[in-house]
Amino acid sequence: MNELKFINYLKKNIKHSKDVICGIGDDAAVIKYTGNKYLLFASDMLIEGVHFSKDANPKDIGWKAVAVNISDIAAMGGTPKYVLMSVGVPEADCSKILKSILSGAETICKKYDITIVGGDTNKGQNLVIDTAIIGEVEKKSLALRSGAKIGDLIFVTGTLGEGRLKHLRFTPRIKEARTLTRLFKINSMIDISDGLFLDLYRLAEASNVGAFIYKSLIPLSVENRDCPRRGLSLFSKAINYGEDFELLFTLSINEARKLMRYVGRYEYPDVTLIGEVASRNRGLNFVGDEGRISRIQPKGYVHF
Amino acid sequence: MNELKFINYLKKNIKHSKDVICGIGDDAAVIKYTGNKYLLFASDMLIEGVHFSKDANPKDIGWKAVAVNISDIAAMGGTPKYVLMSVGVPEADCSKILKSILSGAETICKKYDITIVGGDTNKGQNLVIDTAIIGEVEKKSLALRSGAKIGDLIFVTGTLGEGRLKHLRFTPRIKEARTLTRLFKINSMIDISDGLFLDLYRLAEASNVGAFIYKSLIPLSVENRDCPRRGLSLFSKAINYGEDFELLFTLSINEARKLMRYVGRYEYPDVTLIGEVASRNRGLNFVGDEGRISRIQPKGYVHF
Repeated sequence: MNELKFINYLKKNIKHSKDVICGIGDDAAVIKYTGNKYLLFASDMLIEGVHFSKDANPKDIGWKAVAVNISDIAAMGGTPKYVLMSVGVPEADCSKILKSILSGAETICKKYDITIVGGDTNKGQNLVIDTAIIGEVEKKSLALRSGAKIGDLIFVTGTLGEGRLKHLRFTPRIKEARTLTRLFKINSMIDISDGLFLDLYRLAEASNVGAFIYKSLIPLSVENRDCPRRGLSLFSKAINYGEDFELLFTLSINEARKLMRYVGRYEYPDVTLIGEVASRNRGLNFVGDEGRISRIQPKGYVHF
Repeated sequence: MNELKFINYLKKNIKHSKDVICGIGDDAAVIKYTGNKYLLFASDMLIEGVHFSKDANPKDIGWKAVAVNISDIAAMGGTPKYVLMSVGVPEADCSKILKSILSGAETICKKYDITIVGGDTNKGQNLVIDTAIIGEVEKKSLALRSGAKIGDLIFVTGTLGEGRLKHLRFTPRIKEARTLTRLFKINSMIDISDGLFLDLYRLAEASNVGAFIYKSLIPLSVENRDCPRRGLSLFSKAINYGEDFELLFTLSINEARKLMRYVGRYEYPDVTLIGEVASRNRGLNFVGDEGRISRIQPKGYVHF
């Protein structure tokens, strides 16, 4: 049983209170809050050797620990508010490392007007950080994974494939998400944390739909187009590697037209059309060179 | 710099938003919410080899992971509502372990009407679990560490010293905390997670007071009185070992009288008077055999 199956197991086996609008299986849990807002609640764990290397700069680790949380809130169309950080740290030199981690976390919190409200510190063999975040979203701005409709167009923000290079100091797409959900009817959204194909699979599963993605439309990061690293082309990193933390979202053709007019006028946000939503029985399809269609396998970064 | 100093460093260096009533330095953060309620937000990390042994039953680990969270909410006088669990787990056999952890977590969540709304699963070298909890508390029921007043009487719930024996399957004192804060004016409260002396020190520091604790009044767990383990007397475990997860609280003499009358009538809650709050310049004092007074050193379980 891998992670995807385990999450399905959880979804089936965990009972929800009626105040939980959406629990396990989206980027953040959605909980009843005020008259016109929902509360968002998410957590992410970073482990040395898995999410960052032993020689990573602790400031960058602190930044990333909060950034992945913020990205979860962005994927729901929300605003991040409060963060808790739990850290397990090897004994030697721990206060120096803790201060650096905190300094990186504070830098990004300041940028997004987030308050660190507490946490937990422990000794442990490897460095491990878990951050939990509370955010909020206006009811009308909420974007779930499960809302994609047949005929929707599929977009991504930014460019893909740079994950491995920029993955500690990435910029979560809060500004873009807020603009998108405020001005357009976004039917579904997810952040690309584990590769385009795997996160598309998650969105399609949640929405009970299929999709066509066009290879020639996928926006690769230009800087690296000519320098494949470690034997992987930038393209395969984009679709299968993850850590890009861009947004993948769908909206109706009419809304997409409005979006493209807006982008034409303001040259913002940086979004690219990459495909369209189809019925579930069409499956997940990748339209490659010379129109050859292949099935998309969700091969991205499954955590176990 | 140890954990206590680090937390002081955090308190000084982290800026608060005006919606944060109480941030770093209490059992849970307190955040503006509805007209008559605050939101509570806390997290706790459990690490293999530190908080549980390699051969611990995963169901018990899952129970404990949520129980320590619930205990944080109890210490604020609140009601636990939503939990996120992040787990790092070694690859071999991971879905079996995850299911067992979840089953233990679900058992205690059901008991306290809590919903598990999501989390994060990762592979890691050692088992590590971080749980984050959202709770709520009526404004008038909120109990902080910082409210102790000179002349207050100091009480604990239950008995102390059994931490090492019962520490995985302990019962967080939600029911007791809710009764106490609903019926009496509790000036300050903390849960005893790291030993009576260390948590008393935290409460006194937060409240800027001193205290006298009477050895003869401390309620030790009867079962073990005659079988000291590992060379530690039950008494030194009670004051320095931790993991009892009982509540330590203070209230005025008048409120304490009301409490004792209530306890006399209903034989509930199980509380014991152990000392009194003094001015800060009196320091933290332990009144031992034959009235000998010694200074209390916060020697409990400091995490690093």
